[in-house]
Amino acid sequence: MREKQFMIDCGEGTQIRMRQMNVKTNRLGHIFISHLHGDHVFGLIGLISSFGMLNRTADLHIHAAPELEKIMEPPLHFFCEGLPFKVVFHAFNPKVHELVYEDRTVQIYSIPLKHRVPTCGFLFEEKPRDRHIIREMIDFYKIPIWRIPKIKQGDNFETEEGEIVPNEKLTTAPDKPKRFAYCSDTAYYEKIIPLIEGVDCLYHEATFMDDELIRAKNTQHSTARQAATVALKANVGKLIIGHFSARYTNKNELLNEAKAVFENTVLGEDMTLYNF
Amino acid sequence: MREKQFMIDCGEGTQIRMRQMNVKTNRLGHIFISHLHGDHVFGLIGLISSFGMLNRTADLHIHAAPELEKIMEPPLHFFCEGLPFKVVFHAFNPKVHELVYEDRTVQIYSIPLKHRVPTCGFLFEEKPRDRHIIREMIDFYKIPIWRIPKIKQGDNFETEEGEIVPNEKLTTAPDKPKRFAYCSDTAYYEKIIPLIEGVDCLYHEATFMDDELIRAKNTQHSTARQAATVALKANVGKLIIGHFSARYTNKNELLNEAKAVFENTVLGEDMTLYNF
Repeated sequence: MREKQFMIDCGEGTQIRMRQMNVKTNRLGHIFISHLHGDHVFGLIGLISSFGMLNRTADLHIHAAPELEKIMEPPLHFFCEGLPFKVVFHAFNPKVHELVYEDRTVQIYSIPLKHRVPTCGFLFEEKPRDRHIIREMIDFYKIPIWRIPKIKQGDNFETEEGEIVPNEKLTTAPDKPKRFAYCSDTAYYEKIIPLIEGVDCLYHEATFMDDELIRAKNTQHSTARQAATVALKANVGKLIIGHFSARYTNKNELLNEAKAVFENTVLGEDMTLYNF
Repeated sequence: MREKQFMIDCGEGTQIRMRQMNVKTNRLGHIFISHLHGDHVFGLIGLISSFGMLNRTADLHIHAAPELEKIMEPPLHFFCEGLPFKVVFHAFNPKVHELVYEDRTVQIYSIPLKHRVPTCGFLFEEKPRDRHIIREMIDFYKIPIWRIPKIKQGDNFETEEGEIVPNEKLTTAPDKPKRFAYCSDTAYYEKIIPLIEGVDCLYHEATFMDDELIRAKNTQHSTARQAATVALKANVGKLIIGHFSARYTNKNELLNEAKAVFENTVLGEDMTLYNF
């Protein structure tokens, strides 16, 4: 997002997959952990340890429920002593919707979910981009270069004669900021819908199909139909489903169940890039 | 070994590989950790956690340097609460050659190695097997069945007439007990040679080739030639080399370097079974 790299969750083997995919990590500064179940956390220590061997120097920030720092302290201390970079933990409260990260171009919010332990998803929002300059008008009014940045942000221009040129004559609308929401693991939970309303892309877990509705409820996971229902009600652009139970050998059945409710659904698969 | 299953070291992704290979773990009761570097340990927590989800009930024994229990306590406590089985840590001193495990048919000894942290290999030895009964002689002397177990272990037989039948007339030699030694990670270290003398199979690390002899020494690893020299001097049956540096894209070069010294060498490769 905006040429930045973020990681959400870090299960065992994450660094192995990244090596297989030849993912460069020099722009990875922030990792967001949705909840403290092993399959979302166990890859962290290996990733950090390997970053040390690769002589990473930039700080690595981990955003997670407050318990994680305490749990990771002993293995970090023992296995990663003398790291050439700092690991900085940022605790957030998984029970409230709040801003967990912000920089010049991106904001990231938590999305409280409904699972067996405190869990939240994450909403990635680009900040508004600059408006596009209309070159000919800039030339026509002989606007000096130093005024351009403000005009891109919406300022009007006053000529030497005192004429006010409204911004709309000088610029066109900026590209729409992109929004992506990640929701895993969670039972069907309508409270997230207003938070993710209209995102360009939603990743939502779909551990089961509707034939396992009761098991989904008991384990606080979702079915493919439920994921698609959230996508439909939140009016999202595209839905990616994932986190499938191993019982489903034919994942197209999950896809079809979701597509029956929300057509623009794709399967989330290992080692695959998704654009939106 | 003797129909038993042991694990040596447990790096990140071990459980994933085991699932890929469809390895059943119901006979896995003991794990031996050679040293406390992450690439030999980071898979433990995920393995234990998954055993819990699979409802394993048999205790799991982990043999390692004493620090491991303390390091793993917080993540075990947090991520594996309410496990349906016990995880039992057995501390050993990696600096001495000692018996670390024994049961009715197998003994396992530590082999102190030379590495950047206290490290040891492991020597797996089958106990002597029973002698083979010569059926016809048992019939000839009308030896009752309840005497057979002792005779298999070497006892003579006394007939009702008081005649002593020596064991050698009743049995033939047992199958030779098998011995396997695992040595990783280590610099070239001649002190291990008497400990592994004559093993049927030796696994020895070969991180580098001789072109990186200085780097091998600095990082306390071995070259393929050095691994083969140990195998030759210890008069082992078969050598498996492994733990190769990622710099060697053509592993046959490592193999050839070793074979020039010790012919019966094979490459240790992922997801491969070796018999000896």
